[in-house]
Amino acid sequence: LQVSFGPNAPSLWPCPPTPLFEFEAQGRKIFAKAESLQPMGAFKLRGAWHRLSALGDEERRRGVVAFSSGNHAQGVAWAAKRLGISAVIVMPSDAPVAKLAGTRALGAEIVLYNRETESREGIAAELAEKSGATLVPSFDDPWIIEGQGSAGIEASVQMAARGHGAPDLIVTPCGGGGLAAGLALSCPDARMVIVEPQHWDDMGQSLALGEIVEVASDAPATFCDALMCRRVSDLTFEILRDSGATGVVVSEAEIESAMCYAFSKLQIILEPGGAVALAAILSGKVIVTDNTLVVLSGGNVDPAAFAAILARSETPT
Amino acid sequence: LQVSFGPNAPSLWPCPPTPLFEFEAQGRKIFAKAESLQPMGAFKLRGAWHRLSALGDEERRRGVVAFSSGNHAQGVAWAAKRLGISAVIVMPSDAPVAKLAGTRALGAEIVLYNRETESREGIAAELAEKSGATLVPSFDDPWIIEGQGSAGIEASVQMAARGHGAPDLIVTPCGGGGLAAGLALSCPDARMVIVEPQHWDDMGQSLALGEIVEVASDAPATFCDALMCRRVSDLTFEILRDSGATGVVVSEAEIESAMCYAFSKLQIILEPGGAVALAAILSGKVIVTDNTLVVLSGGNVDPAAFAAILARSETPT
Repeated sequence: LQVSFGPNAPSLWPCPPTPLFEFEAQGRKIFAKAESLQPMGAFKLRGAWHRLSALGDEERRRGVVAFSSGNHAQGVAWAAKRLGISAVIVMPSDAPVAKLAGTRALGAEIVLYNRETESREGIAAELAEKSGATLVPSFDDPWIIEGQGSAGIEASVQMAARGHGAPDLIVTPCGGGGLAAGLALSCPDARMVIVEPQHWDDMGQSLALGEIVEVASDAPATFCDALMCRRVSDLTFEILRDSGATGVVVSEAEIESAMCYAFSKLQIILEPGGAVALAAILSGKVIVTDNTLVVLSGGNVDPAAFAAILARSETPT
Repeated sequence: LQVSFGPNAPSLWPCPPTPLFEFEAQGRKIFAKAESLQPMGAFKLRGAWHRLSALGDEERRRGVVAFSSGNHAQGVAWAAKRLGISAVIVMPSDAPVAKLAGTRALGAEIVLYNRETESREGIAAELAEKSGATLVPSFDDPWIIEGQGSAGIEASVQMAARGHGAPDLIVTPCGGGGLAAGLALSCPDARMVIVEPQHWDDMGQSLALGEIVEVASDAPATFCDALMCRRVSDLTFEILRDSGATGVVVSEAEIESAMCYAFSKLQIILEPGGAVALAAILSGKVIVTDNTLVVLSGGNVDPAAFAAILARSETPT
């Protein structure tokens, strides 16, 4: 895989760079790539745009199909709208209202499924077969991985512009591993640490064991809806394994604390799944270096859920 | 006054440009300058940095004194810390906890006063006289006005980079008028609309009457603590009057709605005072043009206050 997309090919990419914030932790300056500030609120736009903008005229006419709990859905819907492609998205009926509303507002057709009893892969494949539409996977796809990796190139350019070297440590949220694998490819000199919520650390365990393990069938749900992936793909696993990536697990309390930190110190919204890498740094579970890059991957969260988290947080002192 | 600060003098300015978001309202694309994403959460850093970085060695040794409800306090504290200058800030005892904590965390000494019974100007002047420190006003000062105006230059450069003309309409929050006056000077070809909360529209009324009027002595408090200025200054008033600026008033409900919009669509935190200009556009009280720039001026708000606003908002559909 070659990550050719990003600032090196600016004509392809319709969005300005996302902000690179600086904050202090463990006595060091940390760079935070705010992918939550993409126009649809998550890094997913990168992969979706990369895939959809490369479709030929005939493929564009037949449309695209995707399945997603929400952020990939909005990324595909955003790119499809901008490119004039029709999009059908298969989403779980219990997805956050914000993500369902966001996807619908971008003009995509939504097909709901029951996360417990139905197979989203099956529904999406059937839809694609019927209409001839192109299936756009959320992580198990070279185009998607390559697109997500552009975040690392963009951040490296921004760090260089501030007189800093390239990142030597990248701490990133991990669901299916598309973002993490893309970053491993686009920043091959950085050590990769992938962060997952408790009970959903299948990529971390897989990397530790050297082979893919699934999330336990009795794992309790996590409020990191964006990271609820039961099994990573061979492609993302092998890229991360070959890069020497390791995994870290964070608790819900650590994630909530990171969300409140982002609220008070960075003035941005992070959704739970978007805050796990920040949580790993603030909790001290990852020891930072002189050129650490942390990815804040998404900010699509229902107001009531966010309000509840803020309300139970302590007032900063 | 000459606004010489900003991208034209990059060596002076220690921060990367704040993001310029795009959103749609009234069927048009609007540009939103997110000054809430400055390192201390508000545009105030611009004026404070401009003033403090121009102090001579002897002045720097004697330190600075400022009075502020919170954002100017943090701007001065941030600049003072970076420049190695000691800062004493006079703040109202009922300032948001987030602003008190933020100012203290930046190393400034805080002197509290009672907003109802004491004069912050008097306390600050006395402190300055005793120590020989330089008083840094929050808006009634050419340096401060000039510094705040750099936001307009920066936004114009960003709009040009995206193939857009300079802003022809600027909609901005207004307290004492430092930011608005600075923008009027730095973007003289734009029509200026200043936005204030109900009962605190003294600048708007002053502009309509052609002379300065104060806020009524029985005006109820507003949750826009950053905009609670009882009397604007001759300097800011005259600049805005000469530029042909006009005023618009928004209600608390409109402001809360704008804060929720920023939460759901832009994934950023706005404090009430930072959201008034956005509220004026979303409510249709300001009719936008093809090159409208709206300033999102600050994002320092207590978690509990923000949570309460989110909780009473309707879930987006």
